[in-house]
Amino acid sequence: MSLLKQFDQRSPAEVGEELYRFARELFPICRSITGDGIRRTLAMIGDRLPLKIHEVQSGTAVFDWTVPKEWNIRDAYIKAPDGKRVVDFKKSNLHVLNYSMPIHARMPLSDLKPHLFTIPKYPDWIPYRTSYYQENWGFCLTHNQMLALQDGDYEVCIDSTLADGHLTYGECYLPGRSDDEVLISCHACHPSLANDNLSGLTVATFLAQLLSGANLRYSYRFVFVPGTIGAITWLALNREAAARVRHGLVLTGIGDKGNFHYKKSRRGDAEIDRAMTHVLKNNTESPEILEFSPYGYDERQYCSPGFNLAVGCLMRSVWGSLPEYHTSADNLDFIHPAQLAESLRVCTAVSDVLERNRRYCNLSPYCEPQLGRRNLYRSVGGEPIGAEINARLWVLNLSDGEHSLLDIADRSAIPFAMISDAADLLFESGLLKTVQSEHTHETGRRPLPPAENRKSS
Amino acid sequence: MSLLKQFDQRSPAEVGEELYRFARELFPICRSITGDGIRRTLAMIGDRLPLKIHEVQSGTAVFDWTVPKEWNIRDAYIKAPDGKRVVDFKKSNLHVLNYSMPIHARMPLSDLKPHLFTIPKYPDWIPYRTSYYQENWGFCLTHNQMLALQDGDYEVCIDSTLADGHLTYGECYLPGRSDDEVLISCHACHPSLANDNLSGLTVATFLAQLLSGANLRYSYRFVFVPGTIGAITWLALNREAAARVRHGLVLTGIGDKGNFHYKKSRRGDAEIDRAMTHVLKNNTESPEILEFSPYGYDERQYCSPGFNLAVGCLMRSVWGSLPEYHTSADNLDFIHPAQLAESLRVCTAVSDVLERNRRYCNLSPYCEPQLGRRNLYRSVGGEPIGAEINARLWVLNLSDGEHSLLDIADRSAIPFAMISDAADLLFESGLLKTVQSEHTHETGRRPLPPAENRKSS
Amino acid sequence: MSLLKQFDQRSPAEVGEELYRFARELFPICRSITGDGIRRTLAMIGDRLPLKIHEVQSGTAVFDWTVPKEWNIRDAYIKAPDGKRVVDFKKSNLHVLNYSMPIHARMPLSDLKPHLFTIPKYPDWIPYRTSYYQENWGFCLTHNQMLALQDGDYEVCIDSTLADGHLTYGECYLPGRSDDEVLISCHACHPSLANDNLSGLTVATFLAQLLSGANLRYSYRFVFVPGTIGAITWLALNREAAARVRHGLVLTGIGDKGNFHYKKSRRGDAEIDRAMTHVLKNNTESPEILEFSPYGYDERQYCSPGFNLAVGCLMRSVWGSLPEYHTSADNLDFIHPAQLAESLRVCTAVSDVLERNRRYCNLSPYCEPQLGRRNLYRSVGGEPIGAEINARLWVLNLSDGEHSLLDIADRSAIPFAMISDAADLLFESGLLKTVQSEHTHETGRRPLPPAENRKSS
Repeated sequence: MSLLKQFDQRSPAEVGEELYRFARELFPICRSITGDGIRRTLAMIGDRLPLKIHEVQSGTAVFDWTVPKEWNIRDAYIKAPDGKRVVDFKKSNLHVLNYSMPIHARMPLSDLKPHLFTIPKYPDWIPYRTSYYQENWGFCLTHNQMLALQDGDYEVCIDSTLADGHLTYGECYLPGRSDDEVLISCHACHPSLANDNLSGLTVATFLAQLLSGANLRYSYRFVFVPGTIGAITWLALNREAAARVRHGLVLTGIGDKGNFHYKKSRRGDAEIDRAMTHVLKNNTESPEILEFSPYGYDERQYCSPGFNLAVGCLMRSVWGSLPEYHTSADNLDFIHPAQLAESLRVCTAVSDVLERNRRYCNLSPYCEPQLGRRNLYRSVGGEPIGAEINARLWVLNLSDGEHSLLDIADRSAIPFAMISDAADLLFESGLLKTVQSEHTHETGRRPLPPAENRKSS
Repeated sequence: MSLLKQFDQRSPAEVGEELYRFARELFPICRSITGDGIRRTLAMIGDRLPLKIHEVQSGTAVFDWTVPKEWNIRDAYIKAPDGKRVVDFKKSNLHVLNYSMPIHARMPLSDLKPHLFTIPKYPDWIPYRTSYYQENWGFCLTHNQMLALQDGDYEVCIDSTLADGHLTYGECYLPGRSDDEVLISCHACHPSLANDNLSGLTVATFLAQLLSGANLRYSYRFVFVPGTIGAITWLALNREAAARVRHGLVLTGIGDKGNFHYKKSRRGDAEIDRAMTHVLKNNTESPEILEFSPYGYDERQYCSPGFNLAVGCLMRSVWGSLPEYHTSADNLDFIHPAQLAESLRVCTAVSDVLERNRRYCNLSPYCEPQLGRRNLYRSVGGEPIGAEINARLWVLNLSDGEHSLLDIADRSAIPFAMISDAADLLFESGLLKTVQSEHTHETGRRPLPPAENRKSS
Repeated sequence: MSLLKQFDQRSPAEVGEELYRFARELFPICRSITGDGIRRTLAMIGDRLPLKIHEVQSGTAVFDWTVPKEWNIRDAYIKAPDGKRVVDFKKSNLHVLNYSMPIHARMPLSDLKPHLFTIPKYPDWIPYRTSYYQENWGFCLTHNQMLALQDGDYEVCIDSTLADGHLTYGECYLPGRSDDEVLISCHACHPSLANDNLSGLTVATFLAQLLSGANLRYSYRFVFVPGTIGAITWLALNREAAARVRHGLVLTGIGDKGNFHYKKSRRGDAEIDRAMTHVLKNNTESPEILEFSPYGYDERQYCSPGFNLAVGCLMRSVWGSLPEYHTSADNLDFIHPAQLAESLRVCTAVSDVLERNRRYCNLSPYCEPQLGRRNLYRSVGGEPIGAEINARLWVLNLSDGEHSLLDIADRSAIPFAMISDAADLLFESGLLKTVQSEHTHETGRRPLPPAENRKSS
């Protein structure tokens, strides 16, 4: 049974609730690109998956970059002249400029102000700001909080450490029949932000669970990494695995109510680009397909010219297009069970296309084979044929070794699943043989078992 | 003189009436994929053309198929309990399920009903149904007829034979200067249906007549075959001829009032596809160009992946898009003289493009040649040039051995006939030479006669 | 500093006035394809440029053509029966059919009429008509003038000479670091017409002045020639130079108030076609990009199939689309300083693209280089980046040796100047190296000087 049919056997509402529950568990953790927050996050994913945790020492050279010192934080606050905490890390971990140096000092408001970040346009939201590679300290607060600050001396405390340690990332590898890999990548470094990127983390985790039970054609590698530096580190330390990546996806911002947006890989015509386009157009409302651009999430690194991997990025609302982006408004109210479940379904459907897409050769290529005597046609002539028979004719006509099932699905405007089902049936009827794929060392049906062992898959 | 100019010398109304008269003569015959009905039809076409009749024995293997037994029918009826014929083959040959086994029996209505076919949505029309490859018997009748049937015992008689015999098809071969062939194919197996496909048969017959008088570049082969099994049989028995087919058309449903639809060959960019597109866009109202699909008429076989011939299908209304399709409403009122004549004109114009299309080399490729001193330009400067001169400039500019006249017509948006006339004039003026075509062993003007023999073609 | 930045340092109004003043000086001259009118015009251009004047003898064979006899004219008139000059060359040099044979005769109106040219639809305008290659004489006059002519005997005088002499053209060659050439061509043979083509002559002259002060990558060749025969003559006598032309433009009709129209070269995808399209779309209001056609100005010759040079044609209103074309209404009121200045700016911007367009290789192609430590990124994370940083990411991502800066500008929809500035900065930072261009023997930055000599360009 196809992955998608398997997925569709469960209630979407139930799946959505499970995804949402996991996101809610992960939400409070103060993550950063290093430190115990991401470590704890990975441990919770590891409770659900065979996840291998990697620790990479600070100072390790990774291409043009260096793994930074490890940052950890216990507390942070600003106390007003009257001794009250007016900004308090314990209320929201967004309040601290992520990667802030430790500080404990008393200073007048005028000295404090250059270290305060707000969003005047949304005066009740806390912005999310970072300073990973430039030593600094600061607080993020609502604009209204800042306006309320009176002149006077403030106690400023950031109880953080920045010291040699490690960068942590997690990998879940699901071996398939081929060494060729599908890469699913999520950044796991954002603190209490829900859509960016607990949505990606939860969907990826559930997708890995779903795939781990299947007889897979491809091997799948899920990487949960800190953004930018983590993807760079993974690529630097895993160049052989990177060379095996045939298809890949960055999953991010897939829990909100926006329509899907898929940003194509730098190649623009990779199979993942075509598969995702097909799935979104056949399964979702008004999806948008975006051309590659070099700014965005970790596809920036996977699609750098030296790698140029076939990795696209699946989103709903495009980051930055909504005001909630990188603010405290990207919270658990901003993501929804139904949207998370639909995103997981899309990822499952794309996996299905990758798993089932192949090229066949019609073994009876001169004229149509007589489908009627194989009970693959209608019995009374004169009436138009049905959709399933039409799919069979398409597969037979275009199975010349040049066209993949996805090519046929696109050209015929028939959903991939129906085309692929038709191919299965024709293969079982002995009308098709598989063709060695150009990409993979695996043909999906190779070696053909002796005839008595061949049954419907 | 071009074929089209020759065609246009006759009155379209007169041509249309002749086409329609021939369709009316053919209409009453009860055709099927074998038997005396198609034999008689081919004989009537043979009265007008040098038609070679082929008889292929039942049981002959043709690719994945077998030539079926021959079917003939003399009478068929259902008699009501009161002895009256309530369904009578003599009133319409559509009343019998085509290829029905013989039967003579008495049975209650309940046993008869599974053998009755109607169209509830159009209760006064008889459907056209067949059962060539599954032994069965049945009657097609109007829905109102069926509703009027009372309970009781009915006498059912189908006086048919299904026995070893032959499959019959006809071929008209018109030799041209080249062995390369243009294939025109029509199915000739439908009983009293007018648009599907007496329209194709009559237009093809008249086109063959028109071409038979001409000095042809290509050889033309008109095949009149039973649908599906006939095309398969022809292909199986004529693989060498099939290999010589450069361009081809299936003609069907070209007598109704719908706008033209041309379904492209599987190749999609064959010369016939481009020629037909050009002709329809330049000569007819709102034509539609359809991509290839593997369901339809005998282009299914010609475009099967093993052959992949450059054969498209010319229609007016697409089969199945109108309720009259495969019903008794596709009768002589559904086709019209003017539409038949226009369809013949389109086929003539396409033949003209195929006949005249070639590539030239400008013999004066550096700058424009001075057309003025050859009386090929206007005499007073300062005013824009006319369309004929513009066509000459286009032909000169693009005649680099790479562009065919059809390429030039498409790129310049000038009708092919004007481009071709310009090329003729420039050739006569010594400004062009022909280029050996990539497709044909014939260049149309090769070998060049000595100068004193060169005259306007 | 780029040519465009240099151009933009001056006031457009001032530049426009200078251009217009020069057009006004040139306007009264009676030019033709040979003779003293074009000679005087070239002399006035030569006052501003290092212009080499070429004289080519009548009778010289140039491809399929022959350089005609030289035509000069001193006076021409029609005197009415009452002795008054009713048509007078001294009032407008358009009154004489250009290249009229000499005549001095008396004739009745009926004999005169076949030699009179008017525009009935615009009865107050004088048409511009010529008869270079067919011996004739005639007068062009307003339709109202003609209607006022009474029966009677008229004195007709054209005091012209048509005799062996020369065809004259001018060339300004600006050597660059490469022998590869950019060709700018204008016809200089029209009498008192302003847009067609004093607009081209003045803009080309000023562009040559602007470029002559710069350190150029390409060599530039400005040719001022009589239309058709002049371009043919230049091509016939300069086949080696023609072979060095990498990019070219015909400039004509660029002083009126119409939006820009660029007619692409015959190649259709030449770098000049893409550069001009990019510049017009990024700098001007609603430009139109037209496909090549073989009728028009001297691109007809440059794009003849034997040469097929990458030469397009820049216009504002397309010739012939406005009634003023080739009439006395194409006068100094029809062109405007602001439009002339904008046209010059467009030509400057295109030169800038040609000069700066090249391909680079990212020297840090595996993942993004760390721009932050080079002060090429923003300092606080979490907010979107600015346009300049985005341009840097695009250049880094697509600098794989395959994409030119123009490719990157087009794909990113970022103006070329910003992309090119980003490339300069990244090159200075050591993140890029240049790639030998496929077209030119010059790389723009080769050989690389030792590091201590490398500074910002």
